[in-house]
Amino acid sequence: MKFYENGDALTEPFGFFCSGVHCDIKGARNGKLDLGIIYSRKPCNAAGVFTTNDIKAAPVRYSKNLISNPSSIFHAIVANSGNANACTGKQGEADAKKMASEVARHLNIHSKEVLVCSTGRIGVAMPMSRLTTGIRDATEDIIDECDGAQAFQEAILTSDTCTKSCSAKIQCSRGEITIGGVVKGAGMIEPNMATMLAFLTTDIEASNSTLQKLLLDAVDKSFNRITIDGDMSTNDSVLFLANGNSGINLEKESKSVQKNFAEAVNSVCACLARKCVTDGEKVTKFVKVIVQGANNKESALKVARCISNSLLVKSSWYGSDPNWGRIVDAAGYAKVGLSFDKINMLYNETPVLVQGMPLIEYKTKWKDIVSANEFSISLDLNMGESNGEIWSNDLSEEYVNFNKSE
Amino acid sequence: MKFYENGDALTEPFGFFCSGVHCDIKGARNGKLDLGIIYSRKPCNAAGVFTTNDIKAAPVRYSKNLISNPSSIFHAIVANSGNANACTGKQGEADAKKMASEVARHLNIHSKEVLVCSTGRIGVAMPMSRLTTGIRDATEDIIDECDGAQAFQEAILTSDTCTKSCSAKIQCSRGEITIGGVVKGAGMIEPNMATMLAFLTTDIEASNSTLQKLLLDAVDKSFNRITIDGDMSTNDSVLFLANGNSGINLEKESKSVQKNFAEAVNSVCACLARKCVTDGEKVTKFVKVIVQGANNKESALKVARCISNSLLVKSSWYGSDPNWGRIVDAAGYAKVGLSFDKINMLYNETPVLVQGMPLIEYKTKWKDIVSANEFSISLDLNMGESNGEIWSNDLSEEYVNFNKSE
Repeated sequence: MKFYENGDALTEPFGFFCSGVHCDIKGARNGKLDLGIIYSRKPCNAAGVFTTNDIKAAPVRYSKNLISNPSSIFHAIVANSGNANACTGKQGEADAKKMASEVARHLNIHSKEVLVCSTGRIGVAMPMSRLTTGIRDATEDIIDECDGAQAFQEAILTSDTCTKSCSAKIQCSRGEITIGGVVKGAGMIEPNMATMLAFLTTDIEASNSTLQKLLLDAVDKSFNRITIDGDMSTNDSVLFLANGNSGINLEKESKSVQKNFAEAVNSVCACLARKCVTDGEKVTKFVKVIVQGANNKESALKVARCISNSLLVKSSWYGSDPNWGRIVDAAGYAKVGLSFDKINMLYNETPVLVQGMPLIEYKTKWKDIVSANEFSISLDLNMGESNGEIWSNDLSEEYVNFNKSE
Repeated sequence: MKFYENGDALTEPFGFFCSGVHCDIKGARNGKLDLGIIYSRKPCNAAGVFTTNDIKAAPVRYSKNLISNPSSIFHAIVANSGNANACTGKQGEADAKKMASEVARHLNIHSKEVLVCSTGRIGVAMPMSRLTTGIRDATEDIIDECDGAQAFQEAILTSDTCTKSCSAKIQCSRGEITIGGVVKGAGMIEPNMATMLAFLTTDIEASNSTLQKLLLDAVDKSFNRITIDGDMSTNDSVLFLANGNSGINLEKESKSVQKNFAEAVNSVCACLARKCVTDGEKVTKFVKVIVQGANNKESALKVARCISNSLLVKSSWYGSDPNWGRIVDAAGYAKVGLSFDKINMLYNETPVLVQGMPLIEYKTKWKDIVSANEFSISLDLNMGESNGEIWSNDLSEEYVNFNKSE
């Protein structure tokens, strides 16, 4: 597998086109690109994973419903920033549908072949006249086959500080398969709502159900392992389009090609998830929290999440304070039945606790490690054989300042 | 019921004595009182409620074990700040036991008649020679019947900004019954560990099991309803001593006296819990989150906790931003099956949402309400008949700054 960070990503698989335009969704007149389209002339099979929040934005419900039909095919995704179209009632539903039908009208496809994603403020009606103008402009760029991969990446950003993309290529006897992916950050939206959107494209051919299985597995190992502020949004969506333009059919390939392809999807998702965390709002540190020796995976992840979401732990990371007390306290309130005197703990490879005894001779080294902008914390609970990992970051004063008002 | 905020509280029930001394537990030589004793010559029945964290400090395990013996009686509680005696292994257990035995030796009682509480740094050995000196001084003050109620309140403080106490008196045909209570704040400890300690005394006579039932009920309605940073500590303890000095036996009184007494215990706990939240670290606002119309109490509390612990919600409270979007988003990720279009929401008495529709004509009023240093948020889920309430506060930049290092 060849792996590329950044770059055009979505248009690297053969036959995908992207565009991104400014249609002033927020009414801020700042020229920011805020509407984008991904398009394939060849119809795509697709997979999608969506927020499990009880409150789902209108485009999430719309797209989820389309994806759930096993025989559905797709030509396009339309995505906007600046307005999440969440908590907007019947009007929001009509607006999401209208976005799809406008794209379909201009591209001469069926509206059921268009997926819709939104991110931004919640509880505010979509400015539909500006949006329809934007859709007209963005579809024109698609028809003109403009080189809009970067523009699309910019159009979906909210409080992100940079675009985030990557791609992978794998070889097989029949040729080359490419997977591209982009993500927008799980921070806040303008600043109103944490929302993560990710899009993946590939030129392999695969059924909807195979794609869904691959995506679920990859998301479980990547996007579902990250936490920035513990706030799950109304709009989180990961969409995966496969147009088959490479002429290679995944289901007809050898086990080893299938395995390589699955690994490539995993790598793309993992890379995007990691970029998401490091570009979290006002974040200064990336921290891997690894829990081993739990009774089951669920317990391992519960402990890792309690540590990763603790305000006290996150504050200490921000201050480069190797405060193991807060970490074991947070592990303890996961209530998985752990015993302090069984816990082994490491900062990177340096011992912190051995069966609950602190090895304070390493104190200076602990401080060095947690002063870096990336480190890992490993806890072995010595209860069982299961492991789990969460990717987290610190909590800064600037986060609170940034999010204290709209 | 007569109710008094602040005051001596613990020594208002007849026959209780308190003391508080400086023994320099932290080695900071700042003169701060850091060790205190509560004492009753007449033996007390007692009740206790303790942290449910898997990792319990040595004094929590010690005291919990004593309280669990239904025939136990007590004369004293010894409490210190500056060191939590948590994650301190076998030595910590020996030290907690030694604190009890030293108190017992000086007061000529049995060491099993002494409860032990600690709060402060975790993972640091107790400075036992300074502690034993402190216990000698504190017991001398008890023997001399010094007026040490205020000194005790000061001795248990860590990052609290003030002492917190209250008391209640109820009349019955046989005379007067008094209940006193003090609490130290659920912030951080020096700054290492969130810890809440509360102590209640009364001169009624009641069995251990009756006291335990009353205390559990009161704690469920007060201390278990508060959250400051969502970090449950290794040391949280609420202890209740009843010495019977009023000559009134609760079990022999009328239902109405029993009811009045239970209400007085509830009122004392509620008052202390509220003081705890408003004195939370770097807090500027007290917010009651009330959830109604849930399918069951557990769901109501789950929704209220998700709202109360959301970083985004807490940050918006700090910024006086009436951000209902973040609130319903947090309600949604409690995953109790709620529907946005059924939610009614109020800031104090002012409508925010009616069946998911925002009443934006009240927007100025929303802003006024959340700009105050105290307000309530009520969500009616319109799913069932159950309610739940959590008392919370905002998250300030100063909190992060305060907690970023030891």
